[in-house]
Amino acid sequence: MNGAKTLVSTLLASGVDTCFANPGTSEMHFVAALDEIPGMKCVLGLQENVVTGMADGYFRIARKPACTLLHCGPGFANGMANLHNARRARSGIVNIVGDQATFHRPFDPPLTSDTTGMAQTVSAWVRTSARASDLGRDAVEAVSAARTFPGQIATLILPADVSWGEGGVVGTPTVPGQPPPIDSGAVDGAAKMLRDRRDVLILLAGHGVLAEAQHFAWRIARATGAKLMADFVNPHLARGRGRLQIERVPYTRAEAIEAIGKFRHVILVNARPPVAFFAYPDVPSIHYESDTQFHVLSRPDQDPVEALRALATLLDAPDAEIPDAGPRPEPASGVPSPEGLAQTLGALMPENAIVSEESVTYGKHFYRFTHGAPAHDWLHLAGGAIGDGMPVATGAAIAARKQRRVINLQADGSAMYSLQSLWTQAREQLPVTTILLNNGRYDILLGEYKKVGAGATPGENAMSMLDLGNPSLDWVRLAEGMGVEACRATTLEQCADLMRRSFSKSGPFLIELMV
Amino acid sequence: MNGAKTLVSTLLASGVDTCFANPGTSEMHFVAALDEIPGMKCVLGLQENVVTGMADGYFRIARKPACTLLHCGPGFANGMANLHNARRARSGIVNIVGDQATFHRPFDPPLTSDTTGMAQTVSAWVRTSARASDLGRDAVEAVSAARTFPGQIATLILPADVSWGEGGVVGTPTVPGQPPPIDSGAVDGAAKMLRDRRDVLILLAGHGVLAEAQHFAWRIARATGAKLMADFVNPHLARGRGRLQIERVPYTRAEAIEAIGKFRHVILVNARPPVAFFAYPDVPSIHYESDTQFHVLSRPDQDPVEALRALATLLDAPDAEIPDAGPRPEPASGVPSPEGLAQTLGALMPENAIVSEESVTYGKHFYRFTHGAPAHDWLHLAGGAIGDGMPVATGAAIAARKQRRVINLQADGSAMYSLQSLWTQAREQLPVTTILLNNGRYDILLGEYKKVGAGATPGENAMSMLDLGNPSLDWVRLAEGMGVEACRATTLEQCADLMRRSFSKSGPFLIELMV
Repeated sequence: MNGAKTLVSTLLASGVDTCFANPGTSEMHFVAALDEIPGMKCVLGLQENVVTGMADGYFRIARKPACTLLHCGPGFANGMANLHNARRARSGIVNIVGDQATFHRPFDPPLTSDTTGMAQTVSAWVRTSARASDLGRDAVEAVSAARTFPGQIATLILPADVSWGEGGVVGTPTVPGQPPPIDSGAVDGAAKMLRDRRDVLILLAGHGVLAEAQHFAWRIARATGAKLMADFVNPHLARGRGRLQIERVPYTRAEAIEAIGKFRHVILVNARPPVAFFAYPDVPSIHYESDTQFHVLSRPDQDPVEALRALATLLDAPDAEIPDAGPRPEPASGVPSPEGLAQTLGALMPENAIVSEESVTYGKHFYRFTHGAPAHDWLHLAGGAIGDGMPVATGAAIAARKQRRVINLQADGSAMYSLQSLWTQAREQLPVTTILLNNGRYDILLGEYKKVGAGATPGENAMSMLDLGNPSLDWVRLAEGMGVEACRATTLEQCADLMRRSFSKSGPFLIELMV
Repeated sequence: MNGAKTLVSTLLASGVDTCFANPGTSEMHFVAALDEIPGMKCVLGLQENVVTGMADGYFRIARKPACTLLHCGPGFANGMANLHNARRARSGIVNIVGDQATFHRPFDPPLTSDTTGMAQTVSAWVRTSARASDLGRDAVEAVSAARTFPGQIATLILPADVSWGEGGVVGTPTVPGQPPPIDSGAVDGAAKMLRDRRDVLILLAGHGVLAEAQHFAWRIARATGAKLMADFVNPHLARGRGRLQIERVPYTRAEAIEAIGKFRHVILVNARPPVAFFAYPDVPSIHYESDTQFHVLSRPDQDPVEALRALATLLDAPDAEIPDAGPRPEPASGVPSPEGLAQTLGALMPENAIVSEESVTYGKHFYRFTHGAPAHDWLHLAGGAIGDGMPVATGAAIAARKQRRVINLQADGSAMYSLQSLWTQAREQLPVTTILLNNGRYDILLGEYKKVGAGATPGENAMSMLDLGNPSLDWVRLAEGMGVEACRATTLEQCADLMRRSFSKSGPFLIELMV
């Protein structure tokens, strides 16, 4: 059996049954093997950052890794930004990256590059397979690395001759490892603190903001009076009716200090002490008071459900119903506003939807007005590298096997980074509704320009790098150019009508909302 | 003076007066400095691979480096594929890459990543400035590295606090260094061989295929009977009337051996012995016979004009007029074909045009039929990483100060990698005519699938990764969505009409040619 078939067989045996791909010449034997060995769902992306972003979105919903198939060197490089985001989201992905044949590499043909060096910057695990007979074992280890709780980026580099070489041995899948056990001392300490004090914040992150953890966290909060908050960035947050309305630590230091500065003690559940996204002149990096005490209940690589369950049990915290979300909001009308859009979304969102949010500046208040919607999952840009909203939406729809409506709240500047995602949505006829917030500028950067003290008002040269309005982007044409039905809305009534229309369809739809 | 202003001043003093940019928060002081210190032309690209590809195209025409302004880590990563291409084209670029403030980096906020590790994979020179007072000196060295003949990628990483910190000292520009002198022994050896033998090929690459070198090469060939050929890939080739009709070493081994196998001796002028782009099972990597002897007249880092001039002088080769190109072709008609398109292009191309070619499979015969056109420059994809045709065209138009028509012969699959380039063409109103070859598939990969011996016909899963026809891309809408006028052609007559129309305009135009 050749290396490529060995690899496909091992991946399938290990439960990896979805491949997001943009192959090149050095991957052709792998492509052929996908034909010969049935069982792998293959999804093409027209640029690699779409491919890796789809794999991230897939993992967040499927909770198991997909593989990617990427071309050597620069092909991998094109997908690195969304691998960075996936790394920060702690998503599990198995990258299969072709490379020059081992005997051909010394000739340094044009596409030769430092694939290993590139892979190391975004991966927890990197290996170049040396021969076909190693590939089964290497693939098992790659999947195992990708599955390391909660998830990791594993990159397996596959020289062309290893792929076509004979002598492959299908690897024996290993049982996924368990996360390191929780620390009973940490549980005891947290329980003591919660019994003794009234100024305690429990800061939740990672799986700590999913539904099961929320129930235990709420029992603890009810029993002790502790305050619950979530990290600013949450790769996957369970929201809507039946879930907790958890505030997030705000983005700016002033707001963060106002929200959490009053808590002398913070219990970290898979969270880290909150810090600024970026530094600013004469502003401290930390988003807490310097005398705040942090207590780690569970690290990011431990299971927060286990930790919270143990803590609730130790505290003898009784069962507690999650508070009712209040009435479902009504659709708003008139000129688009963040609050109005959020209300409309809360009013119309179908049951069990998935929201992929990369609204950047516009989305600040989306949370407050969508809690009364039916239960849904909310996915954030986790690593700050813009351009993941559309591919994450696309991959999430694949993971949900088209059974759930995906709503992509998408800023225009970020959308331009990976707009090719729309084509894959059309090709796969995915139930994705994109709400494209067209404000014609890099709004966040206009804010940041002032915030860093660069000056009060950008001049001509600065504006030439911050506005997107000359010429205006026409997102209806861009979407239609890739086979996605689209329509423009200038009022919230129009937006609501288009949302209803799109939610009744089985395929993708883009609403260009002029904001 | 703060670091950012110091850096802008030093770049301007060093002759770097064009900045291709896609900044983020950590670059805002640099953006502000570009306002305060006049003289830098700033060009925004909506994704970083457009930015770096523009800088590559700019260098190839302007023959001096531009700077790029890129956001930390993943922002840089997005631009790496075209930096790979620029590295292979030996283009000079000064990348300015923001990064976390030095004091903020240890907190590992979401966007933190291994910017240095990424930069090292594609740069000849990498440095992180440690303080504002170093920045002037560091910038001088970066420009000097970028200008090292023929050109190099230099990456200067600029932590935010170094940018906003005070104490900057504007650097004193250095005189650009000369390339290492040519080797008189190599010239003597080549002369002897050319006098003694009749089976000698002179293989030209780099600046060896530009107009000045061509004149000396032609004198030598006329005087000695040596055959002249060019590398398969030429970042910049002077073509058309008054230039040599130089054949290129063909892409496949069989054709390459047929073309050059008969020459026992090959004199390399900035060229390397030709090898395959990719390895195939049971096919040697080299594109020459194993007993071929190579003689290095000039290395890629030496000046081929100097070497060829010395050789022509030593051979006492008389002046020789470049042969007439014959009659200018007539526009072709009917169903589009590569030959017909090339003829039409040769017939209609305006004087002194620049062709950015990323036609991949379709362009195999473009050369033969365009030699009778007026003098023009032809730019190839140099590193094999698809997605440079459109940004290179855009940057070349900026370098030519809109005074020359740029014609981008562009395959559809590759175009999808950096289609955002069209928006910059519209914003800057650049005279770029894109001829978008829409064949609805990754045609090169269908060929490679067979060539690697993966199988005779791709099956369903393989085709799901190789065809682009479901849904079809509508390039007229995509172009219009970014503000570029566009029209579809299904015959060569229509294509000719649209070419004429576009050549009379001052701004960009896209012709979607259904092939």
